[in-house]
Order: sequence, then C-alpha cells, then structure tokens
Amino acid sequence: MEKVDTMAAIATALGESGISIVRVSGERSLEIVNKIFKGKNNRRLLDIKSYSMRYGFIVERETGELLDEVLVSFMKAPKSYTTENTVEINCHGGVLAAKKVLEEVIKAGARMAEPGEFTKRAFLNGRIDLSQAEAVTDIINAKTEVSMKAAVQQSKGKVSKEINSLREDLLEIIASIEATVDYPEADLEEVTSDKASAELKKILNRIDFLLGTAEEGKIVREGLNIVIVGKPNVGKSSLLNSLIMENRAIVTDVPGTTRDVIEEYMNIGGIPVKISDTAGIRKTDNVVEKIGVEKSKEKIDNSDLIILMLDSSKKLDDEDRKIIEYVDNKKYIILLNKIDLGDKIDLDSIHELNSKFVIKTSIKLGNGLDEVKNCIKKLFFKGEVRSEDLFVTNVRHKECLIRARKNCMEALDVLKNTPAIDLASIDMRNAWTNLGKITGDTLEENIIDKIFSKFCLGK
Amino acid sequence: MEKVDTMAAIATALGESGISIVRVSGERSLEIVNKIFKGKNNRRLLDIKSYSMRYGFIVERETGELLDEVLVSFMKAPKSYTTENTVEINCHGGVLAAKKVLEEVIKAGARMAEPGEFTKRAFLNGRIDLSQAEAVTDIINAKTEVSMKAAVQQSKGKVSKEINSLREDLLEIIASIEATVDYPEADLEEVTSDKASAELKKILNRIDFLLGTAEEGKIVREGLNIVIVGKPNVGKSSLLNSLIMENRAIVTDVPGTTRDVIEEYMNIGGIPVKISDTAGIRKTDNVVEKIGVEKSKEKIDNSDLIILMLDSSKKLDDEDRKIIEYVDNKKYIILLNKIDLGDKIDLDSIHELNSKFVIKTSIKLGNGLDEVKNCIKKLFFKGEVRSEDLFVTNVRHKECLIRARKNCMEALDVLKNTPAIDLASIDMRNAWTNLGKITGDTLEENIIDKIFSKFCLGK
Repeated sequence: MEKVDTMAAIATALGESGISIVRVSGERSLEIVNKIFKGKNNRRLLDIKSYSMRYGFIVERETGELLDEVLVSFMKAPKSYTTENTVEINCHGGVLAAKKVLEEVIKAGARMAEPGEFTKRAFLNGRIDLSQAEAVTDIINAKTEVSMKAAVQQSKGKVSKEINSLREDLLEIIASIEATVDYPEADLEEVTSDKASAELKKILNRIDFLLGTAEEGKIVREGLNIVIVGKPNVGKSSLLNSLIMENRAIVTDVPGTTRDVIEEYMNIGGIPVKISDTAGIRKTDNVVEKIGVEKSKEKIDNSDLIILMLDSSKKLDDEDRKIIEYVDNKKYIILLNKIDLGDKIDLDSIHELNSKFVIKTSIKLGNGLDEVKNCIKKLFFKGEVRSEDLFVTNVRHKECLIRARKNCMEALDVLKNTPAIDLASIDMRNAWTNLGKITGDTLEENIIDKIFSKFCLGK
Repeated sequence: MEKVDTMAAIATALGESGISIVRVSGERSLEIVNKIFKGKNNRRLLDIKSYSMRYGFIVERETGELLDEVLVSFMKAPKSYTTENTVEINCHGGVLAAKKVLEEVIKAGARMAEPGEFTKRAFLNGRIDLSQAEAVTDIINAKTEVSMKAAVQQSKGKVSKEINSLREDLLEIIASIEATVDYPEADLEEVTSDKASAELKKILNRIDFLLGTAEEGKIVREGLNIVIVGKPNVGKSSLLNSLIMENRAIVTDVPGTTRDVIEEYMNIGGIPVKISDTAGIRKTDNVVEKIGVEKSKEKIDNSDLIILMLDSSKKLDDEDRKIIEYVDNKKYIILLNKIDLGDKIDLDSIHELNSKFVIKTSIKLGNGLDEVKNCIKKLFFKGEVRSEDLFVTNVRHKECLIRARKNCMEALDVLKNTPAIDLASIDMRNAWTNLGKITGDTLEENIIDKIFSKFCLGK
C-alpha cells in the first residue's frame, strides 16, 4: 500500500519567478488532477496522451473559483521519472500559486511527498540504482561544471556499470572455487589457488583505479577547503578579495578587523574552492576575539590546504612563529606578502620548515596571484581535471570500495597461506556485498531511507 | 527584427530543487534547442508535435559532453504564452544545471530575455492586454488567496472587459454628438445635451463603481499597513507575537528592547496585513535610539492604521500624551493593555480623543485579541472580502480611472453650460484615452517598457 499511493510536492524552488511545478506521482495521479482541472472547452484530462500537455485552469473545488492558469503534462507509467503515472502542473511562480495548487491536489486525494521520495520510487521501482539516485542530488548541488558533468555521467550509470562488472567477475571466481571444492569429481576445470589469486589481483587493480579517482572526485564534488592564516593586517582579506574579485570581506587598516571566519566560493580550473579568511590565532583576552581564534583553529584543522601569509617587509615576530608552529604539521603554502615594501623577512631562521612552497607576492599590486592559483592546482590535481576521468565522487562509495578492497586483500592472504581455497570465498563474498552497497543491491532499508532523507522536496 | 529574434531565460526560481525550467521563445526556438538536444535513439527534436514532450539530454556542443538530463516540451505558435514558438527545457534543479543549459541555448543562437519580456511579447503580439499582463506579476507576488484569485480573474480579462465596454459606450456618445454637429441635415436622431448628459452619467456611475472597489483592491493586493505604537514595556512586542503566533520580536522586561522596526506579515480574513512594532517615539539622546524614533515616526506617517497601546494599570504620563498627540490626526485604535493589573488609566483626562475604538486587553492572558482583529476588519472592509467583488487592485489603473472620471465631470459641465455640445466631446475623448491606458491601448511605449521592467526574469 505504501508504495502505490499517489503523492505530490512542489518540484521547483520557491521564490518570485515565472513558473512553478507541482509534481504528482502514483497510480491515481491523473484521476486526482482531473478533479481540479478545467480544460479549454471543458475538455477532461483523462484522455490525455502520454508525453503531451493540456492548457487550462486549476479550480478550487470548495468555491468553484479559478485558482491558477496552468499547463498540465502527463507521463504514463512506466515511462516516467518514478516509473509511475506522473502529472506535472506548471503553474505561476511565486510562493502562493504553487502552494495553493498543491493544497488542492492534496485535498483531491494525493498525499504530501517526503524529501527525495520521487527519486526513491525510481530506485525502489528498479529504474535506477542507488548510485544513480545519489547522482541526482549531486547534480542539483553541483558547484562547478566538472562536478555537474561527473554527476550526470554517474546518473547515467557509469559507476554502476563498473561496479556491476566487478561483482560479476567476483561471483565467477567464487563460483569456480565452490564448484571445484563441492564437485571435485566433476569434469570441471580445477581452480588453483594461483589462478584465483591472479583473477583476484585483476579485480584489486580495478578497485584501486576507482579509488584513485576518489581523491580528485571528492574535491570536485565537495570543493577544496582552503584557509588563509596570518597575523592581523598581513593582507589576508585583500588576498581573499583579489581571489574572488569581490569585496565580501571588510578590508581596513585596523588590525583584527576580520572577526568572523569569512567563506567564499571560487572556481580554480573547474574545481570549487571554498576559501576562508580567519581571525588569526594570537592569544587574546577579548571574549569575541577568543571565539574567533577558536573558530580559526577549527577551520585550520579541517582544511585541505592552508595559505600562510607572512609580512615580507618585517622580521618574523612571535605571532608569526606561533602560527608557523601551529600549521607546520599540515599541508600549507607560504606567501611572503608586501614584497613591494621590502624583503627583510628572515624565513631561514626557522629550521626545517615543512612547506616547500614559498611564493613572493604583493597583493596590493596584484603580483603573484597567478602563482598562488597554479600552486593550488598543482598540489591537488595531476593534470587537467576532466569529468570523464572521474568515477568515484561520493564518500559513501569510497568507503564501500575501501571495505571491498580490504576483503579482497584478506582473500588473497587466505589463498596464499591456506590450502583450503574455499575459505577465501567468504572474504570474496564480503567484497561482493560491499560493492553491492554502492548500487544499493545489498544495502539495508534504514540506510537507504537515510540517503533519501537528504534530498530536497519534490525530487 | 527586434520582435522576431529568439530569446531565452530561466523561468523558475533558483535554489536547490528538483526541477528548473529554461524557456525559449521565438521563431527559431525549436531549431536552436534541436542543436543542443540529444534525444533517445538519436531522435531529432524538429518533428515534435505541439503540446508534446521529449526525453533526452542537453549536450555541450564544444566538448560533446552531456550537460543534463531533460524533458523538452514544445508549444507551436500561436498557441503559446508569447504566441511565438516556445520550447521549455525542464532540467535539474539547483543553480548550475539551469545556468549551463541556458548558456548552451544562448550559444546556439538565442539571446537573453529581459525581465518580463515573455509577457511583453504576449502583450505586443496581442494575446493579452496590459491589465492582463500586469495581473501576471500580481499572481506571482500575491500574498493571500483573495489577492491571487482577484489577479487570476484580472489575467482572464475581467477588468479589460469592463473597460472596453466603457470605452465603446463613450465612443458611441462621441460619435452621436459629432454626427449631429457635422451632419445636421442628415436624417439622424439628434443628440440633445440632456440625452448626452444622461448617457455620460451612466458611464460615471460605472467608473465610480470600479473606483469603489479600488480601496479594498489596493489593500488586498498590497496589504494593510499597521503600526503598533506605545511607550516601552507596554506590551507592543507581545501583541505582535500574539498576532503572528511566532517569536520574531524579542520580548524582554527591559524597556526599549525593540530598537529596530520589526515587520511581520499576517493574514486577517484573507487580507495580508503587514504589522510593525516600533521603538516608540520618546525623546532620547542615544544616537541609536534616535534613529529608531525617526524610523517609528516615518512608519506611523505611512501606515494605514495605528494601534496605540496604553498601560491600563497606570495613569497616563507625559510620554503617553506625546504619543497620543502625535497620532491623534491619524486613523488609530486604542488598546488599554494590562487590564489584568488594574484599571487606573485616566483616558477621559484627554479632551476630544480622536478615536472611537477603545479595546481593553490583556495580551499576557490572551484577552481581547479577537476584538482587535475584528476591529481591524470592520474598519477596512464592508463585509467578507471576496475576490469576485474586486475589479481594481492596481494603483495605476485607479489613477487612470480618476483621470477619466475628471474628464467625464468636465464634459458634463460643458454639456450643462454651453450650447455647443461638441465641445464636450473633447473631454470625452480624453476620458476614452485615459481608460485605454488601463488596457494599454493608448499608452506610450516608454511607460509600457517601465511596467514590464518590474517583472521578474523568465516571465
């Protein structure tokens, strides 16, 4: 019952706009919308053809008044997003029109859809697998072209195809091993430990290749997290502004102006980069500043890369040394800023500085910015990042792959050290299960629910 | 040329959502979208039937990569919103997908549409008149059901029909007068001054009826602007909160907490009410408070109704008297609040109080709130406000009607005082022109441009 009722939701973002869409899916969707639709020449909706549209009005049944002018489109099961009968009502934009139309649809017999429920039905009804479903939110949340294209490829089944192929190959080895063990008398080609190991290594290589794309994939999807640190007035806000070419951060001559952590998104070579300015990490008695320092430290600890800014025109002071000490076990690049004011900095006074990347800049004059961008690119990407090279962009998928990899390693170990090769098939079965979690084949219901609950309404 | 090129825009609000729509209108819209569309089985878009849809992908032509999965629908001229060939591309929600798809559409030969340009074309191509076009934004911006329904009626031509009828009748009188004057020898029924006056009075009555709906219409459309005033701690924020049943305003025991003017929308009997809490208007040396007082005075001056709150448990003080003095030439109701703490207030000490509406309340205990709401309703609406009673909700239309009314009055004056009745036809022609401005028949191009520039993009 739960799966066959008809549900509805607003599928477009709310706001002042030309058009909003109310989406209805389920067996009775056409019948329900027909109750509140008044077509031209009183034409009923029930004889509408699949993949066609009708012009008319939505009527408030209680008063008989016209609610809104609409275009209704119909996609007959199974050729729809959910594989169920789907009706889309294009009404006017703005907040009220869509809400009122949705209200009438609900009154006429549909129920409110939960977030992600349209996509969940597409999954439960077998049109797409879980990795394809997850790609849908990735498309919606995409911040750069590369991540969007990778998600579109994933939604078309690029990841699923490779995972399914891996699982088939695994199953074949398992089957051969079990046949050899169970029916030694049969006229089957015997699987030796060496042969199974060789096959398994091929699979491991393929898993490693997928995992190899995961680092870039994660960054492409979630963005690169960069934090700018340095003592007050060294030019952090100016750098941020120059990089984003906007005046989001307040730049003044008063030290310590940037109290809050300021975050901006930018795009370096197709990669979304979240860049944060910080309040610095000096000791302070001021309560507000203290909070700022704590926030900064948290940001630094969670970042992918730190840009440490030092004042090139002055000798290092205690505050600089404190900062260097704090970041030195992390991934960072050094900017010697204000090079236009002089080159007095005594960086070599610090022994065993952990960063190889030192760039001289004058943000004020616009010098050195390109070097900074190139350095960021070089540090994270082997070459040009192209969407077709990306397979794994999802952390959940990566974790499944890591677990499957571990299973395969254990199976290899068993094959090497035990004469009973069928013991290895247990580990291989686990690998098969863990890979299946990516496509949702072997995933528990509560985890599936959790994944879809993160979707937006109307999708 | 300007009118026939093909234009495109995102027609849905931007934000995380299931679906976005990119709308393309113009002669070449199908040809343009066809260039970037990859249908199932490589089916081309060019043979798509009107009012039908196709599933496929939008392709980035430069790289050949798939940009997004889409549903494309087609409405053939003249049966479309703009009366031109219109293609709507339903792509994924979120910010990027729609932007990238729009970008490809532009690269393929369309140009960016200006705000309101789709509706403007519907107007310029003669599908709708100006009052219908204006109704479109009213629907999008509607804050209550009543205003939305009134706008839907207007979009269907309810106002236009009445205005066109008025203009025809005016033209008939003018024609009769002119015929009588120009061809006195002809065998026409002669129009006497009395007869023309009688006809004109009928028209005047109809204009007055329309203007009679304008007051309610304006409030229904724009909302009723209510301001709460009273000295600190008298319960203004509590009243606001009780009315909106939310905790938007900060309520504390410290006098003068509400520094900024706080505004909330609520719905009283289908009417959008914007209700503002104020900082009070007492004299102060504090700079921030001073700004608050100035803002409060401005709000009071621009309001439709003032709710003056007094402390029922105390005698009137100087501050109360100052406030009463300030609002007494305006429309206000008096709330004697904190009635649960006593009834010591000496309101009769004020001679000639200008408000007849005095309500005893205890906001804390929830007493008197319904009286307040009913009083607001009674003050502004004759009865139940129903969308079908509303004709004029637009200030521009009201102004045109007022001017037309003045012209008619002047014509009546001429008919009464001059033997040359054809002189009256000049005024009647002006009335005809002013009425025509409502439907856009007689409006100058720059005013039309100004009206459409207020539309949102994609509409």
